[in-house]
Amino acid sequence: MKSVGIGLVGFGVIGTGVVRLLSSNASIIKERAGVTLSLRRIADIDTRRDRGVPVEKGLLIDDYRKILDDDDIRVVIELVGGTTVAREIVLGAIERGKHVVTANKALLAVHGKEIFDAAEKQGVAVRFEASVGGGIPIIRAVQEGFASDRIESMHGIINGTSNYILTEMTARGRSFKEVLKKAQEKGFAEADPTFDVDGTDAAHKLCILCALSFGYYIELDQIYREGIDRLTPADIDFAREFGFTIKLLAIAREHEGTIEVRVHPTMIPSSHLLATVDGAYNAIYIHGASVGSSMLYGLGAGEMPTASAVLSDAMDIARGLVRGSPGRGNALSVHNRFLGSTQIRPMDEIESRYYLRFTAPDRPGVLSRIAGVLGDHDISISRVIQKGRERPGSVPVVIMTHAAREKDMRAALMRIDGSKEVQAPTQMIRIASNLP
Amino acid sequence: MKSVGIGLVGFGVIGTGVVRLLSSNASIIKERAGVTLSLRRIADIDTRRDRGVPVEKGLLIDDYRKILDDDDIRVVIELVGGTTVAREIVLGAIERGKHVVTANKALLAVHGKEIFDAAEKQGVAVRFEASVGGGIPIIRAVQEGFASDRIESMHGIINGTSNYILTEMTARGRSFKEVLKKAQEKGFAEADPTFDVDGTDAAHKLCILCALSFGYYIELDQIYREGIDRLTPADIDFAREFGFTIKLLAIAREHEGTIEVRVHPTMIPSSHLLATVDGAYNAIYIHGASVGSSMLYGLGAGEMPTASAVLSDAMDIARGLVRGSPGRGNALSVHNRFLGSTQIRPMDEIESRYYLRFTAPDRPGVLSRIAGVLGDHDISISRVIQKGRERPGSVPVVIMTHAAREKDMRAALMRIDGSKEVQAPTQMIRIASNLP
Repeated sequence: MKSVGIGLVGFGVIGTGVVRLLSSNASIIKERAGVTLSLRRIADIDTRRDRGVPVEKGLLIDDYRKILDDDDIRVVIELVGGTTVAREIVLGAIERGKHVVTANKALLAVHGKEIFDAAEKQGVAVRFEASVGGGIPIIRAVQEGFASDRIESMHGIINGTSNYILTEMTARGRSFKEVLKKAQEKGFAEADPTFDVDGTDAAHKLCILCALSFGYYIELDQIYREGIDRLTPADIDFAREFGFTIKLLAIAREHEGTIEVRVHPTMIPSSHLLATVDGAYNAIYIHGASVGSSMLYGLGAGEMPTASAVLSDAMDIARGLVRGSPGRGNALSVHNRFLGSTQIRPMDEIESRYYLRFTAPDRPGVLSRIAGVLGDHDISISRVIQKGRERPGSVPVVIMTHAAREKDMRAALMRIDGSKEVQAPTQMIRIASNLP
Repeated sequence: MKSVGIGLVGFGVIGTGVVRLLSSNASIIKERAGVTLSLRRIADIDTRRDRGVPVEKGLLIDDYRKILDDDDIRVVIELVGGTTVAREIVLGAIERGKHVVTANKALLAVHGKEIFDAAEKQGVAVRFEASVGGGIPIIRAVQEGFASDRIESMHGIINGTSNYILTEMTARGRSFKEVLKKAQEKGFAEADPTFDVDGTDAAHKLCILCALSFGYYIELDQIYREGIDRLTPADIDFAREFGFTIKLLAIAREHEGTIEVRVHPTMIPSSHLLATVDGAYNAIYIHGASVGSSMLYGLGAGEMPTASAVLSDAMDIARGLVRGSPGRGNALSVHNRFLGSTQIRPMDEIESRYYLRFTAPDRPGVLSRIAGVLGDHDISISRVIQKGRERPGSVPVVIMTHAAREKDMRAALMRIDGSKEVQAPTQMIRIASNLP
């Protein structure tokens, strides 16, 4: 075999990186894959824009179907994003016996079962290292490195935009809105950042990690989600005072045969490794029954890190093709035969420590009434800070609780927030104080 | 295929872990490998000792050759350690067309070329995830995850014993000897800890990482090595005062077509992620041209983490066998055809910042004379601390330099240590202040 034909669909930022790497690292790629990766076609609706990389005349076309129908293309790289056209491209490639590399977490989170079933049937590989954590080889780690182990929990910082925003808010004491605006100007956040800041993107990635780690497909809607937009500099300051750092964590955890899956702002002890993951960096902290605690860290997005993950996947497939086998099969599809639905632990039943910030009038007895309601709901207090007046008549009362049930917490907050004394909805942030 | 026959040679700590995991995680392993891993034989010179795991009667034998000659055994797991018998076992298995899993870094560092050449010839797989970083999937990450990228540097904390000792020295202000003794009592250090504390074990692992990352076999003797035994609590305190933490780092770095390879105590900025890797944990910090900075972290040794890595390798091979191919081939042996010898950058030519602790009499002019000698050798000073007297007549003078050439530093120290004023050899520790 002299070369493996590659077809690239989607010539945006990551696609440009792929073309760049294929050219700059051609000899490394050939040596390590044992064969040349030959880019035969690029499809994109925009065939005119100059991407700053040289593209041979005629290589760039506007109809991806020509890639699907090209028998010399063995591997299709899907980088268009979204869940509609991307699904057609990926299923179309699989149907024609082509292997697929994708960076599309939304696609896999939503249509993963359909895609891996089709791939298994056709005996082709679908690789997706770039779908979670950009250049971090987390998919391989979970599919293979930790394959013999029983994974008990995962705590991931897997959305670079929100981590960048939180890091800036923490470092500069600025508001969410202010930092988001700056991030958009600098290109660190999209014009519509909703999916990044509301936890949806992290939840998509968590779906993929759960399938690999626990062997269950989890629907996006089964994942409890809270975004970072409601966090204030005051919360970040109080967290620091208590020795915590706030991160948007994607959490998956086995609990007596059920799985907790949730994405929300979380206070982490500032001395914990995860708390030091700043800016656009991502990290996935995994605890396995045998392997203990492990963490993978790196750039979670961006042109070149993501492109390198995409190409490493294509190289893996090429290596397998040279040896007469499409690689080692899809770990996800190996699981697939066993993938069932599992019981998701209802959010009401999770246990956590909590940070609560009340906006209450500076009058005697308020704290005691709040504490009373918490006590009524079996919630015991660990620490209290009552600051001096910030505005006349109102004072933040901050309480850290011991472990309590979410259900009890919600009931208590409903009562507290319903009282006339409380002047704004209580801020509640979960605390991960017992990270493994 | 109903099952893949496994033969285990070496029934020590890790071997016991492998047997334990095969039994406790049997269903996970079968699901994820797509086939049962069937342990057919265990060979060890000690067939009597109770390891606390149930072993079927007749399974444990004292002659490993019976494993090599058993046609039903497709995968041999070598866990005897050392470079003599282990070499015979591994080469014998390969010769008979069996695939090999090993955790033996010394073997691969010393006989890697011979072993991978033989494996390539026989078309069998040799997997060695457990040889570096215990349960951390660093081998896969470098072989595959970063395969498309050009790795520029690696900085690894890859010896758990010395990291444990340094962490304890740092936390408790105790001497090397004192902590080593405690570590031996607790089982964190071997009775003969030489290879761990003198950098040899880390250098073995660095040989393997270099072959994977840079495509060159490096001989152990080409790696500059310094151990941690000469570090004192005073150095650790001064480091902290300057904002640094001391770690035993294994460093490999490309430099204009040559490679720097060295293992020595290194001062790292305390705010750097690597500085927070404590106790028995290992971490490998990698910088790739495309992927940027990345780190893998986890337990670098121990029964269960290492056993899980061994078994994950065996599962990979099994997955491949089910699909009619011994996996994707050995990345190291793919490299192998291209592996040549490279130019190692001579230690004299490396550049670094330096920490120097002089033991000099508390007399006017001493500092100025030391500074003068450094200046004569093109070494410029960044910071100085001169402490109050610790013993009568003698005072530690501590200097941090700007970047200087090792050759110049050595020449300067030879002159300084040769002068009558200096009462003990100068302590010199390299500083990695510009970690990527």
